[in-house]
Parts: sequence; structure tokens; C-alpha cells
Amino acid sequence: MLEKKVGKQTSRMQNPPSINAAASIVGPKEGKGPLADYFDQAVDDEFWGENSWEKAESKFMREVLAKVTAKASLAMDALDFVIAGDLLNQCIAASFGIRESNLPFFGIYGACSTIGEAMQLGAALIEGGFAFNVACLTSSHFCSAEKQFRFPLELGSQRPPTAQWTVTGSGGLILSLEGNGPYITRITTGKIVDMGIKDQNNMGAAMAPAAADTIYAHFEDTGLPPDYYDMVVTGDLGAVGKRILDDLLSSNGIRISRLLNDCGLMIYDMKQDVHSGGSGCGCAAVVFAGFLYDRLRKGKLNRILFVPTGALLSPTSVQQGESIPCIVHAVAIESSRGGNQ
Amino acid sequence: MLEKKVGKQTSRMQNPPSINAAASIVGPKEGKGPLADYFDQAVDDEFWGENSWEKAESKFMREVLAKVTAKASLAMDALDFVIAGDLLNQCIAASFGIRESNLPFFGIYGACSTIGEAMQLGAALIEGGFAFNVACLTSSHFCSAEKQFRFPLELGSQRPPTAQWTVTGSGGLILSLEGNGPYITRITTGKIVDMGIKDQNNMGAAMAPAAADTIYAHFEDTGLPPDYYDMVVTGDLGAVGKRILDDLLSSNGIRISRLLNDCGLMIYDMKQDVHSGGSGCGCAAVVFAGFLYDRLRKGKLNRILFVPTGALLSPTSVQQGESIPCIVHAVAIESSRGGNQ
Repeated sequence: MLEKKVGKQTSRMQNPPSINAAASIVGPKEGKGPLADYFDQAVDDEFWGENSWEKAESKFMREVLAKVTAKASLAMDALDFVIAGDLLNQCIAASFGIRESNLPFFGIYGACSTIGEAMQLGAALIEGGFAFNVACLTSSHFCSAEKQFRFPLELGSQRPPTAQWTVTGSGGLILSLEGNGPYITRITTGKIVDMGIKDQNNMGAAMAPAAADTIYAHFEDTGLPPDYYDMVVTGDLGAVGKRILDDLLSSNGIRISRLLNDCGLMIYDMKQDVHSGGSGCGCAAVVFAGFLYDRLRKGKLNRILFVPTGALLSPTSVQQGESIPCIVHAVAIESSRGGNQ
Repeated sequence: MLEKKVGKQTSRMQNPPSINAAASIVGPKEGKGPLADYFDQAVDDEFWGENSWEKAESKFMREVLAKVTAKASLAMDALDFVIAGDLLNQCIAASFGIRESNLPFFGIYGACSTIGEAMQLGAALIEGGFAFNVACLTSSHFCSAEKQFRFPLELGSQRPPTAQWTVTGSGGLILSLEGNGPYITRITTGKIVDMGIKDQNNMGAAMAPAAADTIYAHFEDTGLPPDYYDMVVTGDLGAVGKRILDDLLSSNGIRISRLLNDCGLMIYDMKQDVHSGGSGCGCAAVVFAGFLYDRLRKGKLNRILFVPTGALLSPTSVQQGESIPCIVHAVAIESSRGGNQ
């Protein structure tokens, strides 16, 4: 058995990488939400001075990379790798966003689980001796996502109550070999789970079984008690998906209702008319980089299981009558380097 | 300095992972090309019994995963990770192709460099102690790619001489901690290079500077003489891009014209009317998994630098007047575990 492997899907870091900085820039709606004070910046215009939403989304990522690198007190060329992805076709928010960075780049795609995938691969590159510092970035943009996945915004289409609202924003992290934490202590890599849900306006329901699968695997692999963490926080299940997840976990003996939270429910106020909550690659990324990172640094939270959730659909697969395959990655983050569990 | 790092972009494996199996399935046109005998299977119908090209592309990937795992004499659940990506929007060939595998999955996007990115991340996960066995897969499909990136096939649009032909096929590899090689000895991770080319029918010209950048970095980082390898083989530069690459390398003192080859030029015969050559994620993957792997196993080649080339454009970025950012990853593969260079 490899020393780091604990069970089929989980690895425990032997020298846990430190998250040395986090940065987030969000759009106008997110800047009026309950977490507004935690973001580095909220822009008041979805175009942010660009002439397309796609170019604006790239700008979010470019600016977050600059900001998070500066917050880590690093020169840009001290980064060994950038790992980034987004929801746009061929991941152009990332490609164009980091085009001028002149840094070794791994593009990834995990839909809204992307920040979790980036953290896992970044942590593995550092643990494996390939890097001192890795930047992990994702973004999403309400306007570019609606245009690509659903309907032209100009139609003003009505949305069902189960629909979610794509977060406009980008979140970035610097993972480093050395630092004062919080630390990535364990990673559980998700499998694709598809329970046959075909309604792209109910992605919470589609993703909840995948979230349950990964969280269950995490506790099964590690043998940790379900209340080990101060919070188990999913990416963007929203109100509908979070209820389903709670039910699925409970029926498998993991009773953590009071510890469960969801970035999609934290980022907006109920009054903001977002229906089931926030979604998008940016959702988990900005809530972590903004709020959760602050709570971990200040000791308000000491151990969290961060569980970004992704729905791997495309308009093409939906039009062809396919169901929605989902993937969920779990990353354990702790304020101390942790024990032997 | 980390022990594995040699220069800014390159890492040298301390315990080089072995490529224990390779498998390839191609379409009808590739099955009539000069490498036909090296592929495991050539199907005679682009739909392969499915009712859409996208579903057929997923089937290529699903069947290659099964085939390559069997060729490595592994049970499916002996794989620690699958790393896969493709060209379709939201990478659905990969997501749907490996949906039933029930394996931890990392989705990646590097356009036609994807197999190189997968090999780098797979090797890093094994070297880092996270995995015994990793499957690396990519695919492309002429019909799904033309439909998505260019014009409906039914239009029969004329193609300029610089255009390339997207390979239909999928290639897969099993990287393992233990095995008899060939071995991945060094990896050089590419940076995004964009020299302002905007013609999506001349991607060879767009990608050549990125290929030169990564190959130059590889020799600069490692200090190896330019003739160290028996072959330096790019992914899909085609005839136009290969000439530009040769010029760029020569003008930087790397004179390896006789060692340069390109998978896009190897997979088709000139008579097959593919203009500048093959392209697509599947191109480098099937040429490596079919032909190059066979040559390495049989000792006809002992050291190659495999250099998959990717153009990170999307129809949206082209329509918005953007140029084409490119990325190229280099993977050194040798029949022995290698010395200290």
C-alpha cells in the first residue's frame, strides 16, 4: 500500500500543503449579498470595461491571479504551475485569463467542482515534490453561462423554483510547500455518479447523489467520525440539493445535518430572487476564497470538509436526451497540520 | 531546490513511471492510413452503432479504457485514477465515456495537447505516491469536431490548404509505478504562447511557436544535447506548422530537422486529401498508443520527446476576433529508466 493512500478514493498528505493566500472578485449581485465584506472586490458592471461577457470573465481570472499572488507576497514567476478551468466552451475564460502570465499551465474541467479538482492536483504536485507554489483558479459569469447553457438573457425567460443562479466571480488560492496554514490534509477524488436526472433546471437534485457518494467515501476511507469537521460545505447544491444530500447521508448513517452547509446558499440572501441558490465554478471558489478562508485563518473554523460539486452536462448532451453525470471532490482543510488520521 | 525540478518548467522523475499498456481505436479514414496495422481496431462507420457522433466519440473512449486496462492485465478497480479530456463543449466525450467506470476521475482540457497533460499529471500522481496505476485517455472525432468548430458537414465547405483533418479515434495509456517500460523520465509543462495568429484554418502556424517554446525550455532546463532523443515528435502541427517549428528551433540553435516528426503527418497518407495533416486530441494519442509505443517496446526507438500541441481557441473566441492561444507539453519517454540527466 502506498503510504498516502487511505482507502480507494482518499489520500492523506504527509506534509500538508499550506493555503498561503486567497483572493476573490465578484459581480454586482454577489457584492450585495451577505458575504460582501469578505470579497476583495465587487465590480458594479458585468462587462467590467470589456466588450463581451466572455472577455469580462477572463478579466476576473486575470485580476484574481495577480491579486492572490500579491497577497501571498510572491513574484509571479515564483509560481511553478497555474491550474485553472471554467464553464465556457473550451475553457476560454481560463486560457485567455492566464494567457499573459507566462507560467506553466494545466487546464482542467470539472464543471462546478473545478476548484476542488484544482486544489487536489495542486496539493499532489506539491506533496510529490514538483512544486513550491501552485495557483488554483476558477471563474464563472452569470451572463456568459446563461447565454451558453440556457437562453439569451434578452428573452427574460422564466425560471423554475429549482433553478439556480450562476455566480459572477473568480476565486483563487496559492498552495505552498511552506506556510502557516490552513493546510490541505486529505483529498477524496470523486467518481462520476449519474442517477438519471435529466432536468438541467434541477442540478441540485442531479448532484446530490454524487456529493453523498464522495462524502460517504471520505468517512469510509479515513475512519473519521462524521462530526470530525466543524463544517461540511458543498459547492452549489442549493436548497433542493442540500435537502436531498442530508437525506441520503442520514440514510447511510452519516447524521451531520447541523454541520452541512452549501456555498450556493451562503452567497445570496433569500431576498435576492435566486430561487434554489447560487451555482457555477465561481460559487464554491469565491465563498471559499472569501468567507471560509477568513474563518479558518481567524480560528473561527478549525476543520472543514470542502466539497465542490459539478454537473458534467453540456447543451449538446441535454439536447440529445442524456441524463446529467455529476462529480464531486472533497478537500479536507485544517488549521493545524493534523494528526495521523 | 526541489530534487525533481530541473529548471523552471521541467521535472525529472526519480522513479520513472512505466507505460504498461497502450490501446487505440480509430475511424475508417485512419484505418486506411499508413499506421493502420498498429491500431487495435478501426471501425468502419463514424456512428459506430450510436445515434449521434458525440455518443460515438464517448464509445471510442469507453472501449479504449476497457481495452487498455485489459492489455495491462489489470482489473478495472486496480486503476487509482482516470485522467481524460477531449474537444467537445464541456468535455462530454470523456464524461459520458467514463461515466460507468466507477473510478476516481480528473477531467482536463488542453485541446490537442490533452494526452501530454494527462501523462504529466498521471506521472506526477504516481511519482508523488498517490497512485499505483493511472489511465490517461483522450479522443476526437472528425464529425463532432467539424460540426462544433467549423461548418455543418452537409455544407461540404471547401477547406484551404493550411487546414487540417480532425482524427477520429481514441488513445489510452496505463501508467504504473512498476513495470518494464517504456518509462516517463522527464516532463516539461507548457506555458500559453499566443503570437497573434487568428486563422482557425491555420492552427499549425498558431501552435508552432508554442511547440518551439516548450522544446527549447526542455533542452535549456535539462542541458541535454539536442540530439539526445531518437525522435522529437509533435502532436498535430501538420506540414505548415512543422516547417515553422523547424525554422524557429534552428534560429535558436537547436538543429534537429532530421529528428523532427509530427503525428499529424504520420497518421494519413498524402493521397488521403487531408491537406496539411491530422489534428485533434485523438491524433497524438492514437499515434503514440499505436505506432510509437510499439516502436519503443520493440527497441526500434529508445528515447523520444513526445510533444502534443494544443490550440486553446473556441468558436466564441474566434467570433469575437481573438487570436489563438496555444499550449504544448513535452514528455520524455525512454526504454530504460535513464541516467542522471
